[in-house]
Amino acid sequence: MSAPNRATLWGRVVVDELHKAGVEDVCLAPGSRSTPLTVAFATHDSITVHSHLDEHSAAFYALGRAKRTGEPTPLVCTSGTAAANFHPAVIEASQSRVPMLVLTADRPAELRDSGANQTIDQAKLYGDSVRWYRELPEPAPEARRLRSLRTTVCRALAESTGTPAGPVHLNAPFAKPLEPIEVEDDVPADLADRHPLAAEGRNGPFVAVTPGRQTLSETDRRRLSEAIEDAERGLIVTGPSDRLDGKAIRALASATGFPILADPLSGVRFGPGEATVCGGYDSWLAAVDPLDPDLVLRLGASPTSKTLREYLRDADARQVLVDPAGEWHEATFTATDLVAADGTEFARALAADLDSPEPGAWRARFAEVEERYWSLIDGETDRIFEGAVLERVFRKAPDPATVFVSNSMPVRDADRFGRPREADLTVLGNRGASGIDGITSSALGAGSATDDPLVLVTGDLAYYHDMNGLLALSRCGVDATVVLINNDGGGIFHMLPIEGFDPPFTGQFKTPHGLDFAPTADLYGFEFVRTDSLAGFEDAYEGSLSSPGTHVIEVVVDGEASHRRREEIHERVRERLG
Amino acid sequence: MSAPNRATLWGRVVVDELHKAGVEDVCLAPGSRSTPLTVAFATHDSITVHSHLDEHSAAFYALGRAKRTGEPTPLVCTSGTAAANFHPAVIEASQSRVPMLVLTADRPAELRDSGANQTIDQAKLYGDSVRWYRELPEPAPEARRLRSLRTTVCRALAESTGTPAGPVHLNAPFAKPLEPIEVEDDVPADLADRHPLAAEGRNGPFVAVTPGRQTLSETDRRRLSEAIEDAERGLIVTGPSDRLDGKAIRALASATGFPILADPLSGVRFGPGEATVCGGYDSWLAAVDPLDPDLVLRLGASPTSKTLREYLRDADARQVLVDPAGEWHEATFTATDLVAADGTEFARALAADLDSPEPGAWRARFAEVEERYWSLIDGETDRIFEGAVLERVFRKAPDPATVFVSNSMPVRDADRFGRPREADLTVLGNRGASGIDGITSSALGAGSATDDPLVLVTGDLAYYHDMNGLLALSRCGVDATVVLINNDGGGIFHMLPIEGFDPPFTGQFKTPHGLDFAPTADLYGFEFVRTDSLAGFEDAYEGSLSSPGTHVIEVVVDGEASHRRREEIHERVRERLG
Repeated sequence: MSAPNRATLWGRVVVDELHKAGVEDVCLAPGSRSTPLTVAFATHDSITVHSHLDEHSAAFYALGRAKRTGEPTPLVCTSGTAAANFHPAVIEASQSRVPMLVLTADRPAELRDSGANQTIDQAKLYGDSVRWYRELPEPAPEARRLRSLRTTVCRALAESTGTPAGPVHLNAPFAKPLEPIEVEDDVPADLADRHPLAAEGRNGPFVAVTPGRQTLSETDRRRLSEAIEDAERGLIVTGPSDRLDGKAIRALASATGFPILADPLSGVRFGPGEATVCGGYDSWLAAVDPLDPDLVLRLGASPTSKTLREYLRDADARQVLVDPAGEWHEATFTATDLVAADGTEFARALAADLDSPEPGAWRARFAEVEERYWSLIDGETDRIFEGAVLERVFRKAPDPATVFVSNSMPVRDADRFGRPREADLTVLGNRGASGIDGITSSALGAGSATDDPLVLVTGDLAYYHDMNGLLALSRCGVDATVVLINNDGGGIFHMLPIEGFDPPFTGQFKTPHGLDFAPTADLYGFEFVRTDSLAGFEDAYEGSLSSPGTHVIEVVVDGEASHRRREEIHERVRERLG
Repeated sequence: MSAPNRATLWGRVVVDELHKAGVEDVCLAPGSRSTPLTVAFATHDSITVHSHLDEHSAAFYALGRAKRTGEPTPLVCTSGTAAANFHPAVIEASQSRVPMLVLTADRPAELRDSGANQTIDQAKLYGDSVRWYRELPEPAPEARRLRSLRTTVCRALAESTGTPAGPVHLNAPFAKPLEPIEVEDDVPADLADRHPLAAEGRNGPFVAVTPGRQTLSETDRRRLSEAIEDAERGLIVTGPSDRLDGKAIRALASATGFPILADPLSGVRFGPGEATVCGGYDSWLAAVDPLDPDLVLRLGASPTSKTLREYLRDADARQVLVDPAGEWHEATFTATDLVAADGTEFARALAADLDSPEPGAWRARFAEVEERYWSLIDGETDRIFEGAVLERVFRKAPDPATVFVSNSMPVRDADRFGRPREADLTVLGNRGASGIDGITSSALGAGSATDDPLVLVTGDLAYYHDMNGLLALSRCGVDATVVLINNDGGGIFHMLPIEGFDPPFTGQFKTPHGLDFAPTADLYGFEFVRTDSLAGFEDAYEGSLSSPGTHVIEVVVDGEASHRRREEIHERVRERLG
């Protein structure tokens, strides 16, 4: 590794080491201070650049990629508020444990706090939201610094993919010249001869990292297996997770004889397998006769369904929370046991220990209620409302597909109307902080990481928030089927008591904006279809999935009517299943 | 102050106290956790709500208002990443010393770190960027807590408008119910009788705050006056500042006989007065024979002009940096004296001490060069390029007007082509962190705060970044004349050595996006005019300024050609003035 000056050397070494450690993609936003990194990434033969003009969107795009792949896509920006625009996605990555590697360029130390242009305090900019923060040493062609730099890059990747995974922030100060301009005597021409290890690194990563995973001792495994065998009414609950292996969890269900209540974002609701996978619980748990478990195995994050959370809160059962990082992500405060183990490993280990029991009445009851629920839903989703759209989205999604659902109502409707299927659907959402600010970019990032068709289901407010993210369609070459459910404002507020206080309900909560989104198609170059009928939606949805390019299908619905319809259906479920 | 429950009580007391302390406007973004604040603000008789759907834009809008008025417009959001979207504007407020009061709603303490939905770590979310952080006590109808709450509100306003002014963050945890629902025994019906002071506050602010300002002792004043009188070649340099009083600085110039080199964002370049106010220095300082000062009085932040900064760096002079907070905002590290005093007060005090000297050759030389520069520019700006557009913007701006200029090239062209005038132009920019991420919202916020016509000059990348901010035109009822200089990407990079390295110059730095912005007019409802001629621009500009409503005038230019034209003109200045 040689270079015309030390800033260029630094950029090249960082990128060389990232690539040797497995990085093949990067998200870049333009700027001057980051020139040494940008040039090194952009001129590297084996790295694909995803170019973004808005750092807010860039960061969510990188988040989406990492949600889909499990590996971080480094994210580069210049100094100043550019870095602060990453903050929302950094928080989401932290909360939902998604690997992220943020590289912010900075001015050198002597310019900090001096009033120099575009110089802010970037040290620990993201506070406790990052797993690791480090300021890179200032560029210099010294062997120890270079080894430290390579080690830091390897460590940053390891920290971001560790347990729990999450964001890492490297702040990189650079002095001018930032461009690959020859500066005499800045970097010795024979650097690679003098310090081959520091300059060239190794054949492969500088430090090959083997991550440990929390596993159970034999004794603990046995103890848990016995508890499972002793249980008469066991349950598995899987909350949102990008890393649970659906097959392993379903195998655990078969081995234990427990039904699964599977959040749509858990990775367990969709996919092949023998288990009793339930998806309608958000409605039927509150409608049917008490189903009192005596043992609950909880994996993944806190479930989206409030009904399910309240059911767990009120259950008089032993509740085992399995968390790979040993964190108490359990806001009902009723779990009795915390097991610090990887959910998938836990499932595999216990499934191996257990003899699958004969199907019993307990499991049959769940299977029966679930079956009856979906037959009823079949008849109730023949007219347009938000839930019927989600029902179609999941039923007609191709196999395989990546389906990204926005927060607010889409994820709740996915929960209640997304029927379990054997199709290989990777269903993702930003359920860490549950924001609606970076949904489009997250989805497009996820879509960019595979050849699967991409479906995004979003609402009008989320669509508005991240319209800038649509630029990635052309700049990063992503295709998507975007289902834009437009109820002109915050439909979710109809669910809350504030609905009864108007004003300020309409003006400050529902906030109808009256935006006509058709012009976004002209701005960003895609097909735009508007419909207010279910048949129209089905046609457009199937049409989009069977043709190339991006289609935004705007489904115009009435938020309040959709809310009433959900209530009606829930009432019907109560009558028929109760 | 009574309330149906304690959360509602808290919202009402906070808003009551803010209003008593002078607050008349608020920026609200919709959300559930912030309901107690939102309802109290929205139902208050004497507070105007500026409603925003995107927190990023909301915060810059509040920033713009405060830049124009000097007073904070409180900013409210719900819990989660909403708060992180304020971060870029918080940093800008900190760096450019603009009052800002951020109220973030939060979950109560028992839900933190529990995996509860939309619950992130909001404590000190903005790190060292805020002047003061405080978590509000959890709502309870107790006299001490209520007095503390009122005191905290007064203190927050005082901290944000103190020296230096800047952002303050109050994090407000609320438990359900969040809506004004009657909760029996939650708030005693006779609270106001029991604790009148705590419940009702005072007739006026709870604590009337008298801010101290740094002033000079008699001795120090005399010492500085003598230094000024002894100087043979004195200069006043005013950098960006929203708070310098142009009249006072011009009066100081008259009293000292010093010419002023006035940044377009200093508040000194435009306005009536007798002084020698120079605006063309960014070009002519590097062209004319050395003008060696022996004393420089520097007020405001670091100047936009790199030429001017280098001139100051190389000056063999006593350089007195006047900063109200006693901070060293001086990245050339050549100032010899730091005076911790308010710039305007400093100017008034010294002007009062000094006898205006007879005009001398030193001042005459500046006046002459400046005059010759502008006659030359007159002849050089008859063809379209970015500088000619800025020349027209300032020459033809109505009197009075608020003119907001984006970072990147518009502010640099304002510096070089914005000729000093006696008109009352309030020229603003986000020169704290110099980001291009919230320009439109900042401008519309500034425009919303006065009846002056508003002109925004922005580039295509800044326009793209903050398109969401255009929603404020209709939601907040702001009119503007937006001059959108579209050179399809980052024209500023032509100024940098990276221009010589293509690839990656075009793909990763210049980043042409090819966006057609005309559809934004359909999205947000305004007139859109596109022109590629100077006459076309002049017509559209004058037309917009003489008619109501908002007009976006897109001026299509070639970034590289504009850069070459600036270089040519600079060469001509060097030939003719050198």
